[in-house]
Amino acid sequence: MLTLRSSPPSPFGRKVKIAASVLGLSDQISVLTADTNDADDSLRLQNPLGKIPVLVLQNGQTIYDSRVIVEYLDTLSNTSVFPSGDARFTALRGQALADGIMDAALVQVYEHRFRDAERRDAAWISYQAEKVTRGLSYLENGILSLEKQVMIDDIALACALGYLDLRFDGVWRQTHPKLVAWLDAFSDTVPIYQQTAI
Amino acid sequence: MLTLRSSPPSPFGRKVKIAASVLGLSDQISVLTADTNDADDSLRLQNPLGKIPVLVLQNGQTIYDSRVIVEYLDTLSNTSVFPSGDARFTALRGQALADGIMDAALVQVYEHRFRDAERRDAAWISYQAEKVTRGLSYLENGILSLEKQVMIDDIALACALGYLDLRFDGVWRQTHPKLVAWLDAFSDTVPIYQQTAI
Repeated sequence: MLTLRSSPPSPFGRKVKIAASVLGLSDQISVLTADTNDADDSLRLQNPLGKIPVLVLQNGQTIYDSRVIVEYLDTLSNTSVFPSGDARFTALRGQALADGIMDAALVQVYEHRFRDAERRDAAWISYQAEKVTRGLSYLENGILSLEKQVMIDDIALACALGYLDLRFDGVWRQTHPKLVAWLDAFSDTVPIYQQTAI
Repeated sequence: MLTLRSSPPSPFGRKVKIAASVLGLSDQISVLTADTNDADDSLRLQNPLGKIPVLVLQNGQTIYDSRVIVEYLDTLSNTSVFPSGDARFTALRGQALADGIMDAALVQVYEHRFRDAERRDAAWISYQAEKVTRGLSYLENGILSLEKQVMIDDIALACALGYLDLRFDGVWRQTHPKLVAWLDAFSDTVPIYQQTAI
């Protein structure tokens, strides 16, 4: 049995959960909630960075971060979320873009969560918000209908949009109709998406 | 010819430059400085996140982030910075740890660079500093002598330590003698390391 250290709202943890499901591996993974703010959580022994998600193997070895975990899970499955050839790099770039949107969204959330109001910096928040805006705009203008086989860039994008729904009230939906339609199709195709919403 | 958008102090850009050298590809890459703070820099068209490094291919297509670039470069070379089998995941985890140290160091640098003193948050800075401390401590206790063939985890670790030299006055050296010796060996083995110092 594999153990995934994560927490329900984590977009990167969700990426791993969805990839595991698409790869047919959900039954082999038990999820154990981790608290990144608790110095006594074994998480910091499993990953010195204290970040989630972390995958703990049967022998106690750990794997992080989310990209490495997904690639590891991919080797355990007879299907794959990574296309081959040139398409692999398009998918990996898509994952990097979605991961970057999640990072920029998380930075904004942390700015509110970890600081008193007088220490928040409006310019910094908007610098991060602009990354999200540019990323979504790029995707809105380039998004294709969902391919039959769900790949890592699709999974990562769905998690990024889901995180914007969770923490930013889904405001992105008002101005990105193609991404909304794409996410609806993803959600229909990949039931674990709704099941991992909180 | 490939074009790398980066800037001299970027630890992630340095990772790509060193990997390219180890892979024997330096001659095929020209470096063009990018300014992440300049909204008019073509960087934001090349990567909507506005982050460096980005690799621009001959046909104008772009590849990011640093992990994806290194993996792409690896396919162009007849050598490799990724071991095969289980060792691949040890190397990828090592890269993730070093990348995480760089990220936590960068967050601290940004806290000083982008904010007035009264908006800096000591608790946040120390939360990030502790990630670096735990990561270095883990590595100090586990570091092995440099293998003959330099791999991506070695390259990423050297860049993380180099960034701590650049931005944190190399204070880490006082308490991590094994990492110091390791970095000396790396620097001797991989001349581009010193050549990419600023």
